[in-house]
Amino acid sequence: MSIKIGIVGYGNLGRGVECAIRQNSDTELYGVFTRRDPAALQTLTGANVYSIDDILTHKGKVDVLIICGGSATDLPVQTPALAKNFNVIDSFDTHAKIPEHFANVDAAAKEAGKIAMISVGWDPGMFSLNRLYAGAILPDGKDYTFWGKGVSQGHSDAIRRIEGVVDARQYTIPVDEALAAVRSGANPELTTRQKHTRECFVVAAEGADKAKIENEIKTMPNYFADYDTTVHFITKEELDRDHAGIPHGGFVIRSGKTGLNGEHTHIIEYSLKLDSNPEFTSSVLVAYARAAVRMNAEGMRGCKTVFDVAPAYLSQKSAEELRKNLL
Amino acid sequence: MSIKIGIVGYGNLGRGVECAIRQNSDTELYGVFTRRDPAALQTLTGANVYSIDDILTHKGKVDVLIICGGSATDLPVQTPALAKNFNVIDSFDTHAKIPEHFANVDAAAKEAGKIAMISVGWDPGMFSLNRLYAGAILPDGKDYTFWGKGVSQGHSDAIRRIEGVVDARQYTIPVDEALAAVRSGANPELTTRQKHTRECFVVAAEGADKAKIENEIKTMPNYFADYDTTVHFITKEELDRDHAGIPHGGFVIRSGKTGLNGEHTHIIEYSLKLDSNPEFTSSVLVAYARAAVRMNAEGMRGCKTVFDVAPAYLSQKSAEELRKNLL
Repeated sequence: MSIKIGIVGYGNLGRGVECAIRQNSDTELYGVFTRRDPAALQTLTGANVYSIDDILTHKGKVDVLIICGGSATDLPVQTPALAKNFNVIDSFDTHAKIPEHFANVDAAAKEAGKIAMISVGWDPGMFSLNRLYAGAILPDGKDYTFWGKGVSQGHSDAIRRIEGVVDARQYTIPVDEALAAVRSGANPELTTRQKHTRECFVVAAEGADKAKIENEIKTMPNYFADYDTTVHFITKEELDRDHAGIPHGGFVIRSGKTGLNGEHTHIIEYSLKLDSNPEFTSSVLVAYARAAVRMNAEGMRGCKTVFDVAPAYLSQKSAEELRKNLL
Repeated sequence: MSIKIGIVGYGNLGRGVECAIRQNSDTELYGVFTRRDPAALQTLTGANVYSIDDILTHKGKVDVLIICGGSATDLPVQTPALAKNFNVIDSFDTHAKIPEHFANVDAAAKEAGKIAMISVGWDPGMFSLNRLYAGAILPDGKDYTFWGKGVSQGHSDAIRRIEGVVDARQYTIPVDEALAAVRSGANPELTTRQKHTRECFVVAAEGADKAKIENEIKTMPNYFADYDTTVHFITKEELDRDHAGIPHGGFVIRSGKTGLNGEHTHIIEYSLKLDSNPEFTSSVLVAYARAAVRMNAEGMRGCKTVFDVAPAYLSQKSAEELRKNLL
């Protein structure tokens, strides 16, 4: 029997989940729940659209909800609220607030006897997993996370808020020399500036002071001041033509020592190169939605993260098939 | 309270486990169990050495045994036998016989109420995990495993059996062009020859027919005939000086599509670069030994593989600490 998935919120992530469900033959899309007028929302695949206000009338009919809202204001409210009646999963990515979010969601899910998985995606998510695995295997070592090359939404938004900027796209780029130093096993100490550069493509308003905009970007605290930043002014047409995608990715590398006196060095590296950040995150969410439903069916409840999920729960394949063909 | 680990068998892997235990502050080495005369065995760290024949007298005093024998003849007998009285873990790596080994070990461990983890290491092991994760996330894709650059013990042994060969070391090397093609997302079909080359360093006996040896190596069925193989004749001194290490590693790469019509490509890559194959495998074994003891303490029993172990069980860190610092 296929797993019925509900999508809560229909932005880039919700659309990604809609597409990912079609790639997993054991899942089906129950419907999309929206705050907008359901009649006005056109989905990519013609899925059923319901008002979020009526979601409780669907209780018992949907196996798991994938909550596709934002981490700033949506998920802290929606995930604990929905966990009172549904198995849920989200991609909450405000690292500093994960313990608080976990506590809220755990209380709700435990009381309801549901599974609520939080912070599923690639970072937090697959990158976190790789930090855990590598650190458990090589305790005498150091790990490094690099992001990019990819679009940072937050940094792009920060540029757009500058006076005279019409639109902007910001790429985070790992520094090749830093990657090479880490891969050499040298365990370097790297500053923020040494790890990543930032490249900005900016559309300025007619007559805007470009030198002033460039200076405002490069000196912006937290966002750009600690980085080597390059600013390119381009036309709106160029931005739409060359920078419409949402690529991302990165690297988690751990270098560690073994032997009686640490005489041997080992490098564990995990990397992602993603054409579409939201679609990849969505694909991770659907695999963990499968796990959430299976774990709940076995009687597990409460808030879980990727750290708590035995890998076999993620795969469509049976345990026998996994051992025979993938082990 | 620290986890008491027993080592069964004291070769390269056993010595690696002995070293790895010292790097994990929550584990301690209970002792080494050997088929040799215990009085004649000198360990790296001065550990207690016991006869394997007396192992049952240690029941209840050791939390988990790491069985460091060979997959051909030792583990198929030792793992199910020892699982009747101990939590055990092995690195059984004969891929084709995993289902049979699993069945034997599972029956023994279930009856005894113990956990028996099999096929733990890097392949099978970490590579298997990465094949599973990547395949679950990107079902519409293809995965590739490359090994090396590293020493293949089996291929080195095969060369040593040739008449006129005194000693030999064989390296398996991934082909750069094949790696590049896979990373491009092109999902190429690759033959055995296109994926790896084999490089052999051979010490010939005085007066041996080197041309004949080289030909025998290059045409050896299964081992070399399907590969581009290079043979270098060197002296015993050169072999000992330049080829004493046991490095290995490799790559697991999956390339897959997402989107409404598969319009976006994603590359997931996991790689290892290991100075010492047995020491890295040992480090993986110790992390999973921790998991085995914890899982058994929670009431789990039977045969498990890396697919069945929730990642949090592997780490010394508490669940709270993991969520706060690694997620």
